Amino acid sequence: MGERIDYLNDPGAPAATSLVPSANVIVVSEAGQILLMRRTDNGNWAVPGGAMDLGESLTEAAVRETREETGIECEITGLSGIYTSPAHVIEYTSDGEVRQEFSVVFTARPAGGQLRASSESAEPRWVDPAEIPGLVMHPSMRQRITHYLQKRAEPYLG
Amino acid sequence: MGERIDYLNDPGAPAATSLVPSANVIVVSEAGQILLMRRTDNGNWAVPGGAMDLGESLTEAAVRETREETGIECEITGLSGIYTSPAHVIEYTSDGEVRQEFSVVFTARPAGGQLRASSESAEPRWVDPAEIPGLVMHPSMRQRITHYLQKRAEPYLG
Repeated sequence: MGERIDYLNDPGAPAATSLVPSANVIVVSEAGQILLMRRTDNGNWAVPGGAMDLGESLTEAAVRETREETGIECEITGLSGIYTSPAHVIEYTSDGEVRQEFSVVFTARPAGGQLRASSESAEPRWVDPAEIPGLVMHPSMRQRITHYLQKRAEPYLG
Repeated sequence: MGERIDYLNDPGAPAATSLVPSANVIVVSEAGQILLMRRTDNGNWAVPGGAMDLGESLTEAAVRETREETGIECEITGLSGIYTSPAHVIEYTSDGEVRQEFSVVFTARPAGGQLRASSESAEPRWVDPAEIPGLVMHPSMRQRITHYLQKRAEPYLG
């Protein structure tokens, strides 16, 4: 399995070669816990998410990726932000693709299912926001979760 | 110059072959008029917009496309909706590409510039909302403008 390497504000980053629309989902339980999992490609904690496929909408992709990566069914409740900075690129060592960031971050509530891992995701679990600063996480993912926790009046449009 | 053909809820539509993140911009003047232009590829009225390039953010693409297609500089003020329905595909007859819809619709205010046409856009002008029902427009574009005019509390996430 190849690695995923995130570059953020890094003058040594490789040039982007592709743009792949993706969704991330901040699923929040009634108790205010956030659904996180650990990526198997780089070991970082993250909210579930992934690329949109042809034939589905972006919100359908968001629900599907959450199911695949955590076992949890969810209902989309809103939009937290759109992250499309050219200063963030992601290199996939398996094939040399370099994607410019393109993530739409939705909010959601759980609607069934049971926690389970996948080949892309280990240790899915519900996490108290207070615990998040202590988890290993890429700065771009931490930024997205922090924006959500700030309860901004308008979605972030970066 | 090739044609652009929109298919919406059409069982005879060709299968999508690509996903190209794009922005549309609803620029609203102080008097409440909306910036529209006429597409030279299909003759329909539309708000400015187009595909995001590598090396820019989606909001930068929105501002650039508005400038290129209408001559107007604008400042993004918010998000109106995200349109990613698999039931809407766009065929480009020049090369046979079939894109699944992927448009993020921003709102903006004008910030300078002067109205002028381009090779992709004829007759850019400020239009009263009351005039819009009488303009030739693809249903998907009319839906986006209608959602804006409805002043929805939350962005449309389709």
